[in-house]
Amino acid sequence: MRAVQVVGYHSKLEMTEIPAPSIEGPFDVIVRIGGAGVCRTDIHILEGQWEEKSGVTLPYTIGHENAGWVEAVGDAVRNVTVGDKVILHPLVTCGLCRACRFGDDVHCENSEFPGIDRNGGYAEYLRTTARSVVKIDDSLEPADVAALADAGLTAYHAAAKVARDTRPGDTCVVVGAGGLGHIGIQVLKAISGVKVVVLDRNPDAIALALNIGADRGIVADGNHVKEVLELTDGHGAEAVLDFVGEGGATRDGVAMLRRAGNYYVVGYGENIDIPTIDVISTEINFIGNLVGSYNDLQELMALAANGQVSLHTTKYPLDDFQQALDDLDAGRVRGRAILVP
Amino acid sequence: MRAVQVVGYHSKLEMTEIPAPSIEGPFDVIVRIGGAGVCRTDIHILEGQWEEKSGVTLPYTIGHENAGWVEAVGDAVRNVTVGDKVILHPLVTCGLCRACRFGDDVHCENSEFPGIDRNGGYAEYLRTTARSVVKIDDSLEPADVAALADAGLTAYHAAAKVARDTRPGDTCVVVGAGGLGHIGIQVLKAISGVKVVVLDRNPDAIALALNIGADRGIVADGNHVKEVLELTDGHGAEAVLDFVGEGGATRDGVAMLRRAGNYYVVGYGENIDIPTIDVISTEINFIGNLVGSYNDLQELMALAANGQVSLHTTKYPLDDFQQALDDLDAGRVRGRAILVP
Amino acid sequence: MRAVQVVGYHSKLEMTEIPAPSIEGPFDVIVRIGGAGVCRTDIHILEGQWEEKSGVTLPYTIGHENAGWVEAVGDAVRNVTVGDKVILHPLVTCGLCRACRFGDDVHCENSEFPGIDRNGGYAEYLRTTARSVVKIDDSLEPADVAALADAGLTAYHAAAKVARDTRPGDTCVVVGAGGLGHIGIQVLKAISGVKVVVLDRNPDAIALALNIGADRGIVADGNHVKEVLELTDGHGAEAVLDFVGEGGATRDGVAMLRRAGNYYVVGYGENIDIPTIDVISTEINFIGNLVGSYNDLQELMALAANGQVSLHTTKYPLDDFQQALDDLDAGRVRGRAILVP
Amino acid sequence: MRAVQVVGYHSKLEMTEIPAPSIEGPFDVIVRIGGAGVCRTDIHILEGQWEEKSGVTLPYTIGHENAGWVEAVGDAVRNVTVGDKVILHPLVTCGLCRACRFGDDVHCENSEFPGIDRNGGYAEYLRTTARSVVKIDDSLEPADVAALADAGLTAYHAAAKVARDTRPGDTCVVVGAGGLGHIGIQVLKAISGVKVVVLDRNPDAIALALNIGADRGIVADGNHVKEVLELTDGHGAEAVLDFVGEGGATRDGVAMLRRAGNYYVVGYGENIDIPTIDVISTEINFIGNLVGSYNDLQELMALAANGQVSLHTTKYPLDDFQQALDDLDAGRVRGRAILVP
Repeated sequence: MRAVQVVGYHSKLEMTEIPAPSIEGPFDVIVRIGGAGVCRTDIHILEGQWEEKSGVTLPYTIGHENAGWVEAVGDAVRNVTVGDKVILHPLVTCGLCRACRFGDDVHCENSEFPGIDRNGGYAEYLRTTARSVVKIDDSLEPADVAALADAGLTAYHAAAKVARDTRPGDTCVVVGAGGLGHIGIQVLKAISGVKVVVLDRNPDAIALALNIGADRGIVADGNHVKEVLELTDGHGAEAVLDFVGEGGATRDGVAMLRRAGNYYVVGYGENIDIPTIDVISTEINFIGNLVGSYNDLQELMALAANGQVSLHTTKYPLDDFQQALDDLDAGRVRGRAILVP
Repeated sequence: MRAVQVVGYHSKLEMTEIPAPSIEGPFDVIVRIGGAGVCRTDIHILEGQWEEKSGVTLPYTIGHENAGWVEAVGDAVRNVTVGDKVILHPLVTCGLCRACRFGDDVHCENSEFPGIDRNGGYAEYLRTTARSVVKIDDSLEPADVAALADAGLTAYHAAAKVARDTRPGDTCVVVGAGGLGHIGIQVLKAISGVKVVVLDRNPDAIALALNIGADRGIVADGNHVKEVLELTDGHGAEAVLDFVGEGGATRDGVAMLRRAGNYYVVGYGENIDIPTIDVISTEINFIGNLVGSYNDLQELMALAANGQVSLHTTKYPLDDFQQALDDLDAGRVRGRAILVP
Repeated sequence: MRAVQVVGYHSKLEMTEIPAPSIEGPFDVIVRIGGAGVCRTDIHILEGQWEEKSGVTLPYTIGHENAGWVEAVGDAVRNVTVGDKVILHPLVTCGLCRACRFGDDVHCENSEFPGIDRNGGYAEYLRTTARSVVKIDDSLEPADVAALADAGLTAYHAAAKVARDTRPGDTCVVVGAGGLGHIGIQVLKAISGVKVVVLDRNPDAIALALNIGADRGIVADGNHVKEVLELTDGHGAEAVLDFVGEGGATRDGVAMLRRAGNYYVVGYGENIDIPTIDVISTEINFIGNLVGSYNDLQELMALAANGQVSLHTTKYPLDDFQQALDDLDAGRVRGRAILVP
Repeated sequence: MRAVQVVGYHSKLEMTEIPAPSIEGPFDVIVRIGGAGVCRTDIHILEGQWEEKSGVTLPYTIGHENAGWVEAVGDAVRNVTVGDKVILHPLVTCGLCRACRFGDDVHCENSEFPGIDRNGGYAEYLRTTARSVVKIDDSLEPADVAALADAGLTAYHAAAKVARDTRPGDTCVVVGAGGLGHIGIQVLKAISGVKVVVLDRNPDAIALALNIGADRGIVADGNHVKEVLELTDGHGAEAVLDFVGEGGATRDGVAMLRRAGNYYVVGYGENIDIPTIDVISTEINFIGNLVGSYNDLQELMALAANGQVSLHTTKYPLDDFQQALDDLDAGRVRGRAILVP
């Protein structure tokens, strides 16, 4: 089959012909790829940023946001059958460690990460396991939802925590109205009663955020902390959901937080640097957020099937993978780039 | 001032002139009534059903679903000021018992209930305390929201529990698409990701429920348990929110419940009568629901201000109180009858 | 190997020689049995009460409370190795359904139950899977903890819910001071701050309960509801943990419950039969309880290793299985009977 | 009455004669002081560190950890009566703001703080309100529990969060085995199933910690992070409860934390300074902790009455206030210094 592989760091990806994967164990599932998201992480992989961490042997097939159709299943697989439309949880998890047993499979002690440390989805077929395939509704198409598998799932996971921790009428400041922010806003409006206040430096991004349901937009122009405090009668917001995490976002975000409020860290780059006395005197919390669990992905797909969460995508034939990466790198992709074999 | 009073059981209410209430304690609040809901409980009071339970001395002013404007406040009141638009939590609570201290003020050990055991809101003014007044948004009018003070608050309280206990994609069967059911459906759609399946004997009520957001309606014609099971792949629903509680509703409701599911009891009339072995072998729960707390009422008003929850009302001048009661008794009121002084 | 099998209903168990089980799948685990609990359910199986429900083909090996040593493991097993001391979760679960993925593996859609619907532990060896084996501390012996695998796990599961739902100073009435009651009491005292009030008809059982940590014992002599109300200033208990569920226990238990209290159903026999108006006017909940999850069993073993939970056992050689059953049936076993191969 | 007052910053406290307080409002409560804790904060007040923040007018009576007997009550007080033994929650709260209504009265928008911004308890009598008095068990004496009112309540509040967030068998590292640490350890052992690992630079403090129930002690000698990781199979602890918050404690504490673990900040001094990528890649949380709520204090008193939490105290006659402060400043007080009028 055709597969796009990393053949060396600081080199370009290459399309090659490799044998299609086959069932090796009783829980294996072979998926015919319908869409593979092109992610900034893919560029970082080529730059060698993941070389040491992943320890993957080259060449290997890249691509960690995948959806498609079940092509074959191992003997023990009961949750999907051949022909099912599926989206793939980004991790392959063991199901035996205590984290997996609690549904926190993202913290599996024995996980693998197709597209990062084993063959991924820039290809015609991918081998995963029964534990990673989520059936999607008939109304959804793999190429349309593939990007929800990782970026969208991260936003869902954090926004669902906000929903559980807040009450109708509370305020949640969403910092950053990019791809993750848009998913986060849609999720908050779908499953919580919070007032969503969106912050971004780009007025166009704010306009789009208001269009998909945000209650209020504020341009981050230096006056934004004051504006949030005014909007909340001087008290600050019950929740700050930070998709940026750099350029001073955390300092400003904390300043916008109400006593006993929660700061959800999603974006990263800078340090959180805060006096412990400020943490205890206001009794605020910092909540870390990684990608969501398998169950989170099922829930996100339920919202997607219901039309409550969607993501704009730009599709490229698999053969045009280099164009997709170039467009992403140059900021020319609207929404998310998806490779379609 | 004018007030409509209970002068005897099995007698008609009478309009009389009594002194307007005045501030007696530092936390007292006098409210000029803008709307008072007419409730079936008012008819039951006249029938003597509450005589023993309330122990109220006749005559007294009836009316327990009230909203209006703050007319005067005691020295210690800090949460409202004269002129504020407010809705009244139905109970007057002590703020000192452990239940009050946890926000479960509905279980206050020292509560009173204006309209039931002291003077209520079928009048020009009512005396309550700072602990019972919730400010409402400028965009809302007292006469429009008064009925949310008790009936609506009960539905909100139960639906908010469902929202906290479920996940997007779960199914909640709402049994009964009357007044409370309509509020419940709107709340579920506003703050949770559940699929709302509505059950009612009346196809018109179902049509209206679908119109306000229910995902699916089923006429309770004898085949409804089977239909719910089919809709849920034979597993049953994660939640049943029962606004009926009589005529076999609980037996059918339990039959529609998934393993480990929650049955929310709101409506009442019949007994829950279930073998303990069925409770433990499926590990289901029965969740009781009374009216909501003060904080619940704040949250419901946030949803109302946001246009996410509304209730159809039919307004009557206070002088036409008898007509309103007669219309209610005869089933001629669409939505909720509201007396406006 | 030697195995004790059901050869017919309304017949006695028979010791036979059958082939020892072997690894069939990659997640299989063969356990050399160190102790198998003798349970009243085993007697019910022989009486034919489970014939239809289990659908098991005779003959098969009975015994569903098992602990021992890992004898062999399949290729994919990572959580135990040969020689590990283990206790067995009673169910064999799929790990793929949504319940399993949330850690609620007891509600697995595809579970099997060794000793009930496939070969169990009255034998030298048993085949289970990696998902059902919990490593135990070096300080514990399989024959000593085997009975915690099912009866003890059920008590732990319910008591841990009480612990999560209560606060220090709250009262929990434990109804029934038998085997499960004793585990429940020990768990409550180990992980919660509730005041434990024990109720039983048998003064000796109460004396033993006080000995293992109960704060107060009340003989169920007809005056017990009144006594509990007096102990709780007339309010009732925040929690009732009912290990009896018959003979009027539920009626009395509800009468001892505080407003907004939780009634935990574990024992069974009679019906819960309660007017819905009583459920809503006091806003009480009924919480069903089945056996605990795999993670619950890990937690119970942590308490056992710490000396906080223990169960008196009487050991019998496997060959004396009939004696053990006869003693159980005649009420001659103190604590729990354990077969040791 | 006699009262010890701040008469100027950078001056010594002075004993003076002032009028005893009297009931001014219907919810007022006058308490005859039985014990007033001497706290390092009192020294900081004299150093002027609270001058600007409190804005208190001098002279005023110092002392914020108080217990005694109810001497007089206002008309509306229902929760205590004259003669009741009580401990005082450190704050006087409004009961009307949303935080108070949720039981989070520590975040009251209108609170006062006797001993900090109004007259406190280094005196014969103190005026507070019904919202701040917690009845204590007959078996407890005011002078013995006074120090639990603030320092102990802070430790309880944080430890109770740990208890709610963990499961039996989890590990909680308690950083700092001083006064708060000792309360924290006792609370963890009383109401949770965590394994308590205590860290301190002082071997004597560790010995005492082990004596009151800690499962394991580690001297913080530079090797402690490694030792905690070894104790937890390399994974780290599910919870770190940090009563130090300075001198590198937070850096070390984070290094001892398991993926998805919680870091409870109680002690303060240094900054938390951590890359956001570390927060998200391990999905850890930082949980701020202030003093506990009124309900928390009731719960702590339940544990104290049960003998599960106690604090060593050294009593001084009120007239010897200067000696008590000098001893505290010089590190000569074992446990907590208490002034007894």
